[in-house]
Amino acid sequence: MKFSERNLTLLCDFYELTMARGYFHSDIKDKIAYFDVFFRRVPDGGGYAIFAGLEQIIEYVKAIKFENDDIEYLRSKGIFDEEFLNYLKDFSFKGDIWSVPEGTVVFPAEPIMTVRARAIEAQFIETFILLTLNHQCLVATKASRIVRASQGKAVSEFGARRAHGADASIYGARASYIGGCASTSCTIADKMFGVRASGTMAHSWIQMFDSEYEAFKTYCELYPEGPTLLIDTYNVLKSGVPNAIKAFKECLTPEQRKHCSVRLDSGDITYLTKKIRKMLDANGLTECKIVVTNSLDEYIIRDILMQGASVDAFGVGERLITSRSEPVFGCVYKLCAIENENGQIVPRIKISENAAKITNPDFKRLYRFYSKDTGKAEADLITIYDEAINTSEPYELFDPEYIWKRKTIENYELRELLVPIFKNGECIYTSPSVDMIRENCKKELESMWDEVLRFENPHNYYVDLSQRLWDEKNELLKARAKK
Amino acid sequence: MKFSERNLTLLCDFYELTMARGYFHSDIKDKIAYFDVFFRRVPDGGGYAIFAGLEQIIEYVKAIKFENDDIEYLRSKGIFDEEFLNYLKDFSFKGDIWSVPEGTVVFPAEPIMTVRARAIEAQFIETFILLTLNHQCLVATKASRIVRASQGKAVSEFGARRAHGADASIYGARASYIGGCASTSCTIADKMFGVRASGTMAHSWIQMFDSEYEAFKTYCELYPEGPTLLIDTYNVLKSGVPNAIKAFKECLTPEQRKHCSVRLDSGDITYLTKKIRKMLDANGLTECKIVVTNSLDEYIIRDILMQGASVDAFGVGERLITSRSEPVFGCVYKLCAIENENGQIVPRIKISENAAKITNPDFKRLYRFYSKDTGKAEADLITIYDEAINTSEPYELFDPEYIWKRKTIENYELRELLVPIFKNGECIYTSPSVDMIRENCKKELESMWDEVLRFENPHNYYVDLSQRLWDEKNELLKARAKK
Repeated sequence: MKFSERNLTLLCDFYELTMARGYFHSDIKDKIAYFDVFFRRVPDGGGYAIFAGLEQIIEYVKAIKFENDDIEYLRSKGIFDEEFLNYLKDFSFKGDIWSVPEGTVVFPAEPIMTVRARAIEAQFIETFILLTLNHQCLVATKASRIVRASQGKAVSEFGARRAHGADASIYGARASYIGGCASTSCTIADKMFGVRASGTMAHSWIQMFDSEYEAFKTYCELYPEGPTLLIDTYNVLKSGVPNAIKAFKECLTPEQRKHCSVRLDSGDITYLTKKIRKMLDANGLTECKIVVTNSLDEYIIRDILMQGASVDAFGVGERLITSRSEPVFGCVYKLCAIENENGQIVPRIKISENAAKITNPDFKRLYRFYSKDTGKAEADLITIYDEAINTSEPYELFDPEYIWKRKTIENYELRELLVPIFKNGECIYTSPSVDMIRENCKKELESMWDEVLRFENPHNYYVDLSQRLWDEKNELLKARAKK
Repeated sequence: MKFSERNLTLLCDFYELTMARGYFHSDIKDKIAYFDVFFRRVPDGGGYAIFAGLEQIIEYVKAIKFENDDIEYLRSKGIFDEEFLNYLKDFSFKGDIWSVPEGTVVFPAEPIMTVRARAIEAQFIETFILLTLNHQCLVATKASRIVRASQGKAVSEFGARRAHGADASIYGARASYIGGCASTSCTIADKMFGVRASGTMAHSWIQMFDSEYEAFKTYCELYPEGPTLLIDTYNVLKSGVPNAIKAFKECLTPEQRKHCSVRLDSGDITYLTKKIRKMLDANGLTECKIVVTNSLDEYIIRDILMQGASVDAFGVGERLITSRSEPVFGCVYKLCAIENENGQIVPRIKISENAAKITNPDFKRLYRFYSKDTGKAEADLITIYDEAINTSEPYELFDPEYIWKRKTIENYELRELLVPIFKNGECIYTSPSVDMIRENCKKELESMWDEVLRFENPHNYYVDLSQRLWDEKNELLKARAKK
């Protein structure tokens, strides 16, 4: 039995079902609705986010099925009539989905996924879409920050034990890899996705033997190709490092010694790694790597590297797998249009006293402008679905809030970011491997200006509305204010 | 197919497997090892935690099985020999596990679970035990705080969409319920565990209709028994509340009006709920409840109740399901003893420069002292496994760090907290229903002094070592310092 074969159909907010019955018994039943997924801010005050989780959403949408026991459970709630329950027996998603590909760099306010389907179908898949994206975008974005802080040194994701349950561990490993991590401690993520699993020993390995040296020696004999010895069970400098050096020298060939490592999991990293480096070098182990772990994140890594810590690789656990500094990614799922009886698209808007919470109406497209001179991304543009952009002409962008801020872009290439995933309920998209997604993410980041990638106070990347969309939105706001 | 039938055997840190092969090929293979699970501090600076997740650990341990594709995957890594892989084919857990029951109030430093098994078996289950407890204890503890802040008003868990993946949503709902929540939005958690699912409508329901009133009216007609109308899609006081009142009056009988509610999801809760209450009361809807949602947690709930907000129930989402203010629960799994060739238990200790990280050695028992006068819990005591306590005599407790702090307890009852779960690989424990666990948790909290339950700067509940255990620990520390 495959892990992905779980029936998660009922993993939905209960109100999706009460609303579904409501739509079913009203004339909304067969109305076509458009929903956008977007988020309002990047966690940690960062300038960009990494999109991840699409593959799992595809699997879920394909597999939706109310089994007999699901129907029975719903019947037991006493509020769902037989006609509706009968309808659910054959329920499936028959609509369309567009999404940005995984690994894409995405920004607040833009539609990163759009669903077009009968109201019941479009509404029903809300919860699973949100929880999947909110998890994987969160972790991929955090991983991207940590990997950037590490300045080319490998980052391994070691957070399985602190994740919020099994899926958080498994799909967190996947998202971390997409965001740039080199490997994971989570074995099953390797089997499932090919995210390379790594790891060598816990403190208990050392405690299990009568001496630290014996533990190290046994391990080197078992794994002479690239052993990593954990050096802080008793005393790093007095015991751990000397015993590791002794074991490396006695058990490994000169060639094998080139691939050995020590791991430090406590104490002051800057101070200790400098000492450790000297001790290793003095014993000819100049190629022995120093791996550090212990509650690391992008801030600590940046600090210790600035202080000249002698580190070759990082293992990052709880602060990555839970995105500890900000563990919530705020993707929302909002109705933006419905089709009337003539098949015309009628935009819908949600008002809020908080201006940032007002939605962008209508069925839309999302474009990214790249400068032909630099290859860099200059801005994203949201348009109504049927607008055409003449790429041979300059395009004037303006800030949707401060509309006097205008910028004319010339000599650009345009890329449409939302690609078709489902058409009439058929999946027409093939998910790339995680390696390809990770590579895509790397290229995406290379196309961004450094100013956008800063950890704090980054440049606000432009996400603008076309003039037509801006006008339409303001007309709807005015009309609503009059009511 | 059942959700719980997933094969999660490979959901382990990769080092559990490299160590397993190491134990297998050394004389440690059949050594009996003892591991303790404990945590070092309560999240959010709180004074207590709620234990949850045991049922899922039992399911996992029972189901451990390396399937052919698992073996094939491991073979492909190129570091596991055939003899070891062959051994894994019949691998299962044949040891003993003791645990505190779910819903128990637990404190830092005490063993809340103990595993006794052959080294490989005991080591192997580390990752799953930790990730399960670290998730469910985290959320149950947070839920307990939020429910306490709500002063008897019902708290519903509405966080599914912001959870870290499917399991975080499902088992987070379970843990929230154990911690005291009244219901969840997560439908599948209701089906699986009987955690009552609730929910009525999203903003999209209202947007789907031509007018807010029409949306409300349709809903009331469909669900006349206890409808909850969402009143902030356009304008709460000018549109939402008047339309809700109109719909309640027109569609519900006087009896049905006693069970209706309105839900507020934005704006200033204190200000708006007072206004809403007046408007409802002025229209005879004195029994209409006001439910509030929108990024709530224990701090905001405490504040708005202090300010006299007119709220009958709370829906809490992201800040509960992710424990946003502190999303990591730090359970660790540490070797505390091994058995020598004569079957004698030999204590093991892990040293650290950080005194709090030094482990308590040996196979231990955990007791809770209750005052016979008040029924309240007075202290927990950790002893070596074979110590006897004469409950007819006073018992002198002392602080393991500040040993001059001593307290003699008289007229007490003693409860042993760790109960047997597995014996020789057989599960000898029947998991109670979540309702029973929730009830147990409630009683546990009633047995605690208010000082321990404070949100901030709580009284440090005593978790002491017996004199014999304290002496043994210090002997081991001294012996290690000499090396």
